[in-house]
Amino acid sequence: MKVEIVIPDWLEKLNNIAKSFKSDEDKMDFVIEIARINVENGGGPFGAAIFDIDTGRVLSCGSNLVLQNNLSVLHAEIVAIILAQKRVKSYSLSKIGKFELFSSSEPCAMCLGAILWSGVKRVLWGAPSEAARKIGFDEGPVFESSWIYLKSKGIEIKGGLLKDKATEVLMSYKELKGIIYNP
Amino acid sequence: MKVEIVIPDWLEKLNNIAKSFKSDEDKMDFVIEIARINVENGGGPFGAAIFDIDTGRVLSCGSNLVLQNNLSVLHAEIVAIILAQKRVKSYSLSKIGKFELFSSSEPCAMCLGAILWSGVKRVLWGAPSEAARKIGFDEGPVFESSWIYLKSKGIEIKGGLLKDKATEVLMSYKELKGIIYNP
Repeated sequence: MKVEIVIPDWLEKLNNIAKSFKSDEDKMDFVIEIARINVENGGGPFGAAIFDIDTGRVLSCGSNLVLQNNLSVLHAEIVAIILAQKRVKSYSLSKIGKFELFSSSEPCAMCLGAILWSGVKRVLWGAPSEAARKIGFDEGPVFESSWIYLKSKGIEIKGGLLKDKATEVLMSYKELKGIIYNP
Repeated sequence: MKVEIVIPDWLEKLNNIAKSFKSDEDKMDFVIEIARINVENGGGPFGAAIFDIDTGRVLSCGSNLVLQNNLSVLHAEIVAIILAQKRVKSYSLSKIGKFELFSSSEPCAMCLGAILWSGVKRVLWGAPSEAARKIGFDEGPVFESSWIYLKSKGIEIKGGLLKDKATEVLMSYKELKGIIYNP
């Protein structure tokens, strides 16, 4: 038996662009754009991507597909991790090379845990958790000590990059009366 | 584009048994058995299932499919949540009824967060987190305050049910030199 996760055409295309990015700002701008496109296509206001740290090349892109697939685990970060590991055929990206995950918003409790298992070496986000909580999403138990734990495992953490632009996507989702898919 | 997750035949069959269980002990025994069968089939030593709280009927069963699918997010709890939500066609089980998740081991940081989003109202586990950590798995940042957060959201939490029997499956995995799929 196979369980299927539907990836929209526009996201599939982005996964095949094989583009390289130079700066952290350019990469963050890219995932914020993914979040924006996802909202236009009826999804939650979150985007993520995984890049090769050495070359800046995109390995995978994810957007929040909770509503489109009726699956609560399909946050942007989880989709990016699944597509990356499918691409390299390994349950740990650290076995393949050095990769970093960019997310338009601070990862929720689930995604924070998933990042640890994924094998990425660097995590960056735009909007802080409070911005997502402010529009109604229950981001779960994420504490300062949670991120300190990941750092202790050798993962570099950087939050708040282009945070105003990233927060704007969240605010526009609220204005559009987007579905807040809490349990 | 569709991403496929392969569910082994034995697990598919268990998902279709439509059996009802009476006690918490019977349900825990069932998920420990899932963990044991999964090890026999080359998977990680973890099992989970979601039951209807009122009728005790199985809604879905999951086992750890990280190794079989090369995907780090496919812990037993995540597989059970995906199969349950696919079955009821909703990203939140609380929209459908009252459901409980049983896991043979204490959920890791990722699964704890996923449980919050899933819409289950009750969580029970067998072996404590320390037992999984002892055989080498990095369960991530799970604190007492993490579970308190879930309780504050109306989720009932109960750990350590049949913990000796549950821990035995973990110990036997270590003896068999099963793969510890940390990043």
